[in-house]
Amino acid sequence: MTEPAEDRTLLVTGIGELVAHDPAHGPSGVLTDAALVVSSGRVVWTGPAARAPAADDRLDVEGRCVVPGFVDSHSHVVFAGDRSAEFAARMAGEPYTGGGIATTVAATRAASDDVLRHGAGRLVAEMLAQGTTTVEIKSGYGQDVATEERMLRLARELTDETTFLGAHTVPAELDRRAYLDLVTGPMLAACAPHARWVDVFCEPAAATAFDADESREVLEAGIRAGLLPRVHGNQLGPGPGVRLAVEVGAASVDHCTYLTGDDVAALAGSSTVATLLPAVEFSTRSPYPDARALLDAGVAVALATDCNPGSCYSSSMPFVVALAVREMGLTPLEAVHAATAGGAAALRRDDVGTLRPGARADLVVLDAPSHVHLAYRPGVPIVRTVLQGGRPVG
Amino acid sequence: MTEPAEDRTLLVTGIGELVAHDPAHGPSGVLTDAALVVSSGRVVWTGPAARAPAADDRLDVEGRCVVPGFVDSHSHVVFAGDRSAEFAARMAGEPYTGGGIATTVAATRAASDDVLRHGAGRLVAEMLAQGTTTVEIKSGYGQDVATEERMLRLARELTDETTFLGAHTVPAELDRRAYLDLVTGPMLAACAPHARWVDVFCEPAAATAFDADESREVLEAGIRAGLLPRVHGNQLGPGPGVRLAVEVGAASVDHCTYLTGDDVAALAGSSTVATLLPAVEFSTRSPYPDARALLDAGVAVALATDCNPGSCYSSSMPFVVALAVREMGLTPLEAVHAATAGGAAALRRDDVGTLRPGARADLVVLDAPSHVHLAYRPGVPIVRTVLQGGRPVG
Repeated sequence: MTEPAEDRTLLVTGIGELVAHDPAHGPSGVLTDAALVVSSGRVVWTGPAARAPAADDRLDVEGRCVVPGFVDSHSHVVFAGDRSAEFAARMAGEPYTGGGIATTVAATRAASDDVLRHGAGRLVAEMLAQGTTTVEIKSGYGQDVATEERMLRLARELTDETTFLGAHTVPAELDRRAYLDLVTGPMLAACAPHARWVDVFCEPAAATAFDADESREVLEAGIRAGLLPRVHGNQLGPGPGVRLAVEVGAASVDHCTYLTGDDVAALAGSSTVATLLPAVEFSTRSPYPDARALLDAGVAVALATDCNPGSCYSSSMPFVVALAVREMGLTPLEAVHAATAGGAAALRRDDVGTLRPGARADLVVLDAPSHVHLAYRPGVPIVRTVLQGGRPVG
Repeated sequence: MTEPAEDRTLLVTGIGELVAHDPAHGPSGVLTDAALVVSSGRVVWTGPAARAPAADDRLDVEGRCVVPGFVDSHSHVVFAGDRSAEFAARMAGEPYTGGGIATTVAATRAASDDVLRHGAGRLVAEMLAQGTTTVEIKSGYGQDVATEERMLRLARELTDETTFLGAHTVPAELDRRAYLDLVTGPMLAACAPHARWVDVFCEPAAATAFDADESREVLEAGIRAGLLPRVHGNQLGPGPGVRLAVEVGAASVDHCTYLTGDDVAALAGSSTVATLLPAVEFSTRSPYPDARALLDAGVAVALATDCNPGSCYSSSMPFVVALAVREMGLTPLEAVHAATAGGAAALRRDDVGTLRPGARADLVVLDAPSHVHLAYRPGVPIVRTVLQGGRPVG
């Protein structure tokens, strides 16, 4: 009887540059002229190619760079409807108000499971082809019990990292108090079985989003239901989102476009990751977050896409890396770290985001000799091969 | 006997949006629910899908958007060597000086024909996969007679749009007068048979580039040798490049990062196209050109990549379109026009850049319902199918 394929070992060799995020390879965590061995879907060895052990199978990447699979810790890929006209209007000079979300809510409520499944599956496949091997997906375009539950059930078909975001905005047909009672009551009860995370759009600057007390109420209800907290905050202006995230021990606070010195200090003294979404700033023509202030203060930083039909319809982590370097002054290595290990930290995962022994064998072979090319070659599809759990995809 | 394949007609149908740049379809030049017929490599009919004539073969694009193949009228893809470290240093705060070109010149001189052919062929294939069906390629990394001639011979294997750019910079080993004599004498004589265009880096702000009189001398020598003029100008600061381009009747002046009102007025009264290269500004962290001032004055505008190892190593016309919308305020349709019909005008071509009857059947099927998605989905590889002369490529 043939051994099951998952028990065969795979030697990935000829790695010109291995971005392992492994301190065993020095402060950079990078090894050149490297090899890596996969067994049962995990990395079991990394080191110099010349000292690689034998394995059953072999993949020679001919001098190319290997980075960990990207961890996109913030997306909204379950939705229906089209908002390209809203995008074009915004680019012609209308400011982003977030008002267009009602379009997506109406279309998502009206869509069948199959339509939502097809759309989300297509975007996750598109992400995977661009090197994203772990993706988080939020609800938040249902804003009624049935559709929020349905979004999460469909998201769970695609990932374990599902987030209940009933508190995305207050729908037009309900008042704030009635909606908060729904979100923290029956909607949470229906959604919690399908979700790992609870999230809230804490943004007093937006009339339809939530203030600090409302947001705390949502997060605490979610925590009581067994969910882990994360926060959308400080996107449209300075606000309480960052400090609330730190207060409740959120894994991450996402956007961080407008930060005060106190916000940065609060994050630096916490285990909350600052998740930056620069493709949102690109697609809304907004200022970029002060990533250097965060990094220089020792804050853990993640990069994610926020892929959604309104404020950012990019699914591309390579594009996000290029923006982080160009617009926020990250070094290419800092940007790759934030897009991989940073995303993993934002999801409280230690099995992805690095290529240390023990990690999942989620890895991306770039059609380039160095990770620098992710920023040096913006817009170019340089992801050549993606392995997920040690198996080539696509 | 079977008819030769090129004589079979092809019906492309199910086109949700056909960006034809054809005034027969109204001021936008765009038709919805359209079809297109190809014969002998040319577009022979466009119109409503419901009224499409019969054809031998059929391609149903299922509601997707079709745009003309991109015309990338400015590239430097024949080169050897790597400058990713220079890029990373620049992103870390060192200003772009252009000094790094000597690295590429040395590596290009030392490279074999096969190395140069392989590198350029790979980049042109990468461009084609991203929808670029016409590309211009320049010399300028040889800066000696043999290597300049060799670059153009290799470029001519890939495109008819070859440009002699001996006057890229003055090499360190020669003084300016000696180099100008070489460029306008023996180098031009060796290169002219392989080139359609003559170009010069007219940029008094850069010590190694050329001033207005030197640039005029280069262009006039090229014109006498039967070449058509084009100019690199106004990239690093205000200067005489635009006015010289207009004076000599150049097809295009490229970069235009720093323009005065007089420059804009001179272009508006001329047949010279302003070719903007926003991926250079992205990759050098420079200010973007004032594209709106040009368009509002009636200047013909093109978009191109400038793909080269120093100031911009992007080969992606979709990325350039996204930047033009985000950073320069073009509408998505203006950006697509500039990246297709604009590039064609910058190369004095009337057979590419539109999908009017008579044009080459160079077309791009987007994995999207509308051309807006080229800007709405930045970084995402949404080019699904490319036809060149009516035949699918890749």
